[in-house]
Amino acid sequence: MAKKFVSMRSLKFFLYELFDVESLTQYPYYQDHSRETFDMALDTGLKMAEDLLYPCFSEMDKNPPKMEGGKVKVHPMVKTLMKECGEGGWISAPLPYDIGGQQIPTMIMTAFRYILSAANFSAVIYPFLCSGSAHLISSFGSQELIDTYAEKMFSGRWQGTMALTEPQAGSSLTDLMTTAYPTDNGYYFIKGQKIFISAAEHDGTDNVVNLLLARIKGAPLGVKGISLFVVPKKRVNASGELEDNDILCTTIYHKLGYRGAPLTQLSFGENDDCRGWLIGEPNQGLRCMFQMMNQARVDVGMSAAAIASAAYYAALDYARERPQGRPLMEKDPTKPQIPIIEHTDVKRMLLFQRAIVEGSLSICLQCAKYLDMLQVVDGEEKERLSLLLDLLTPVVKTYPSEMGVLSVSQGLQCLGGYGFCEEFPLEQYYRDMRINPIHEGTTGIHGMDLLGRKVIMKNGLALTFFYEEVTKTIESARDIDSLSSQARELEAALEKLKTVTTHLIGLAEKGETALFLADATLYLELFGIIVIAWQWLLQAVTISPKITDLSSESEPDYHFYQGKHHAFRFFFEYELPKIDGLIKRLMNSDGLTLNMATEFFDD
Amino acid sequence: MAKKFVSMRSLKFFLYELFDVESLTQYPYYQDHSRETFDMALDTGLKMAEDLLYPCFSEMDKNPPKMEGGKVKVHPMVKTLMKECGEGGWISAPLPYDIGGQQIPTMIMTAFRYILSAANFSAVIYPFLCSGSAHLISSFGSQELIDTYAEKMFSGRWQGTMALTEPQAGSSLTDLMTTAYPTDNGYYFIKGQKIFISAAEHDGTDNVVNLLLARIKGAPLGVKGISLFVVPKKRVNASGELEDNDILCTTIYHKLGYRGAPLTQLSFGENDDCRGWLIGEPNQGLRCMFQMMNQARVDVGMSAAAIASAAYYAALDYARERPQGRPLMEKDPTKPQIPIIEHTDVKRMLLFQRAIVEGSLSICLQCAKYLDMLQVVDGEEKERLSLLLDLLTPVVKTYPSEMGVLSVSQGLQCLGGYGFCEEFPLEQYYRDMRINPIHEGTTGIHGMDLLGRKVIMKNGLALTFFYEEVTKTIESARDIDSLSSQARELEAALEKLKTVTTHLIGLAEKGETALFLADATLYLELFGIIVIAWQWLLQAVTISPKITDLSSESEPDYHFYQGKHHAFRFFFEYELPKIDGLIKRLMNSDGLTLNMATEFFDD
Repeated sequence: MAKKFVSMRSLKFFLYELFDVESLTQYPYYQDHSRETFDMALDTGLKMAEDLLYPCFSEMDKNPPKMEGGKVKVHPMVKTLMKECGEGGWISAPLPYDIGGQQIPTMIMTAFRYILSAANFSAVIYPFLCSGSAHLISSFGSQELIDTYAEKMFSGRWQGTMALTEPQAGSSLTDLMTTAYPTDNGYYFIKGQKIFISAAEHDGTDNVVNLLLARIKGAPLGVKGISLFVVPKKRVNASGELEDNDILCTTIYHKLGYRGAPLTQLSFGENDDCRGWLIGEPNQGLRCMFQMMNQARVDVGMSAAAIASAAYYAALDYARERPQGRPLMEKDPTKPQIPIIEHTDVKRMLLFQRAIVEGSLSICLQCAKYLDMLQVVDGEEKERLSLLLDLLTPVVKTYPSEMGVLSVSQGLQCLGGYGFCEEFPLEQYYRDMRINPIHEGTTGIHGMDLLGRKVIMKNGLALTFFYEEVTKTIESARDIDSLSSQARELEAALEKLKTVTTHLIGLAEKGETALFLADATLYLELFGIIVIAWQWLLQAVTISPKITDLSSESEPDYHFYQGKHHAFRFFFEYELPKIDGLIKRLMNSDGLTLNMATEFFDD
Repeated sequence: MAKKFVSMRSLKFFLYELFDVESLTQYPYYQDHSRETFDMALDTGLKMAEDLLYPCFSEMDKNPPKMEGGKVKVHPMVKTLMKECGEGGWISAPLPYDIGGQQIPTMIMTAFRYILSAANFSAVIYPFLCSGSAHLISSFGSQELIDTYAEKMFSGRWQGTMALTEPQAGSSLTDLMTTAYPTDNGYYFIKGQKIFISAAEHDGTDNVVNLLLARIKGAPLGVKGISLFVVPKKRVNASGELEDNDILCTTIYHKLGYRGAPLTQLSFGENDDCRGWLIGEPNQGLRCMFQMMNQARVDVGMSAAAIASAAYYAALDYARERPQGRPLMEKDPTKPQIPIIEHTDVKRMLLFQRAIVEGSLSICLQCAKYLDMLQVVDGEEKERLSLLLDLLTPVVKTYPSEMGVLSVSQGLQCLGGYGFCEEFPLEQYYRDMRINPIHEGTTGIHGMDLLGRKVIMKNGLALTFFYEEVTKTIESARDIDSLSSQARELEAALEKLKTVTTHLIGLAEKGETALFLADATLYLELFGIIVIAWQWLLQAVTISPKITDLSSESEPDYHFYQGKHHAFRFFFEYELPKIDGLIKRLMNSDGLTLNMATEFFDD
């Protein structure tokens, strides 16, 4: 197996050169941090990744969780990981001091998790799912709930989960049916089914704390009647002991990838004795949950970029080592074969992967920066960043996921027949990656979210802010010789995006809602390409002095900056042109798919 | 599991309405055949697929071949399948009468195998790999070899294989090292290693007959010194008994998909007693082998289309059954949920799959028709069809494979979380499909073959014939109201292809060979889209009278023709526009990938 799954050089470029995470420390909220604490976090992440996670990457896939008598047995590394993440403070690290956190910037935690996810995607879900749900309890729960759960979860002794999906509802939260029956004892009786819940039953922790969406008996129909509950696998009884809370794990799914973590189906209250505690106000469950959503979606994008990174380095390693064929014009079979990395088409496949990996990581950290800034700014700037983040959330979730699938596939292709075999890790990356366009909202859902909600909210204000941001980058690139043509291209692309958007909004204004949204997924794809082009131009602007200054191969970082510059050019020359086909389609709103009768699909 | 994996209605449209396979029976070679024998073949195929293959589809994946002590145990169905295919005459069916065949048109056999492959891709490899290698022996082998092997292989009692790839050579046939040492006994001693050989060791047949590429001791270096041999697992000794031939199966690969068939690594002559018999002339091995290559590549395209077909019907079945969400403007949660097929984005995903499946199948059967016509025409027409087939071979292999991966992925996406789970078949289709862009030449190899060989051969004559064929279709569509805009679009696309091709050939003429071929893979992608657009326009022309005549839903076939017409429109509106981005890149020959130093990839 390749030794490298992530480039620390590249990660530090993003953090320190491009997004200047150190600048956050000027704000009181982050003032206790410094380059030293950030580097320490990254070094610790790399060490955990190399020593603990990466060695189990294949093993956890080949020995997935097993269920016996309702109990799920997972790889023993999970227990160690939860302990190390708990003791090291990594589960609570991003949270505010007042709820037990360390106020580490989201940018650093995103980088930290990126390193771990590149080493072992499935394993990372355990501690950081815990982080998210503990954060919810700490933010919205009563003091009693916080006292009961938060510290146990922060220390990694109790697993946290998010239990949303139900069999009859899927993506349609409106149709959630799990019910909470009020009692006079401060808790509710919970009855219902949940599916696709990660890590809700396993032996790597002493308990599991499910955050569950349910409907209080008699609550309004639809999403307005959904509340959020803490429903532990084992509840604490009056004498402080743990007792069973009537939750049955009925199934663990056997799945394509992401096999290191159990995906469970749960039945709550089969014996009418499952107790749940309300978090926040009744019927405000979605509002609480959505506070975590932007973060959760950045995390999906980050995970996708991480898997693609690991696949890239595995493909690169193979391409360097594997001799096959000769230079194009060399017909002499006595000449030695060359490593396949010297074939132009292999270079193309590798550059494609880099362009995707680093473009994706860039937008993830850009969004992480918005999350960090939202902690420290107020007023108009807060609204501006908040709207930018909302607008970019469907992109940061979807672009790395969808393009990551293609990126890993190209990595696999670099290995030819070996890419298809289990002795190399590419086939596992290929399987693991495929979950990302599905979970945390499918690509189709995010297309609707972007066009049907984010683009038009506040009369297009988020979009205006986005155009301004991109235009700023274009302006800064315009006068740099090596970037001026790309600056013009992005400018033209942005104009085209405006034209398409105006056309589509025109349909909405005419009341043609179905037509307006018919190709929302393609609109998201178009939008994504332009966002990533913007991120690449931003990177190119940042490195442009280095490209000029470092003229000799012998200087440190010469290769790094040249590689980055080539990947930037690749994106503009191979990926950005894809917008033309999308625009052609999006401007042609003839309702072809909309009007396809369902009977026509038969034969 | 969905009941349907293939549409017989659609298949019969291609055979009888579009490509008029019956017209072949006017030629003496095919005169014994008729619509009745063709229908009988298709019905038998469907029956075998439904009764024998489909029920084992998942089982063969979950219980892949096992190796113990050099012996490989496969699913017991393999034995039944070989027997039925042998006794039914299906292994020899496409071959000429004089070597034991039935002269069934390739179009019919392609359809037959398509049905079987849609039901169970892995299983189909056993009988039809046998068919191909038996055909080689029958065409080029001595009478003694034919007498010894052909009938045993035709009857399905002995498995045939093709043993090409070697560990140090991969795609580079120049570097084959397996050696044949001449003896005075009419055979050679064989020594060497082969990898990735399908079905070369298993207990579903009594013997295995490997067709092997090797170099006779002292032969010229490179591809000019490669000969073809029959190397059986067990050889027939003087007394007519089978004895071991010193071939060791050292490994079977554990792989992403295609798990129902063993992919083996073989060691020949470890005890210096492996005997091989030359087929054809010394050093002419590749010429013999390549005679099978066009057919083999049509078969890969056909298999890819078949898997995509099965995935489409599984996704369709789910989309019809699964209620989720409500119509776009329906906010009342008391209204019932609707099947997801009624959501526009799901229709889009389904139409995409259809456009790929039927566009791919169309080009496969188009090439099969060329193969059939090559049996019965002579002179200039034979050269013309032969050149067309050569030109289209990289496309028919690659387009269904590459786009099939995306098509199956969209099928999986239709199922959301369930698509990722083993209880539905999509995840297996997703895994099985991924072999197709790799085997029988990777996509990169076929890009080079198309641009570097086929396009320029005979001074571009094949390309000229191709332009003529497409133009004929455009002419026939131009005056049909419902097709005229698509006719113009294809005409414009063809002009763009000519411009790109002229630009690239200009580079070759200037001696810029590396630049000429740098984006050959993208050129193949561009070419493929135009080929499939041509095939869709051809289909649309064929059905256009029906679209006019059948105006009522109650008429039989109304839904079928409407569905086909919508899929045709989908291809032109969603897929054909993708050429613009490709053309933009291909016209910009700045050598970006070519000049990327390998050191730049590091970080």
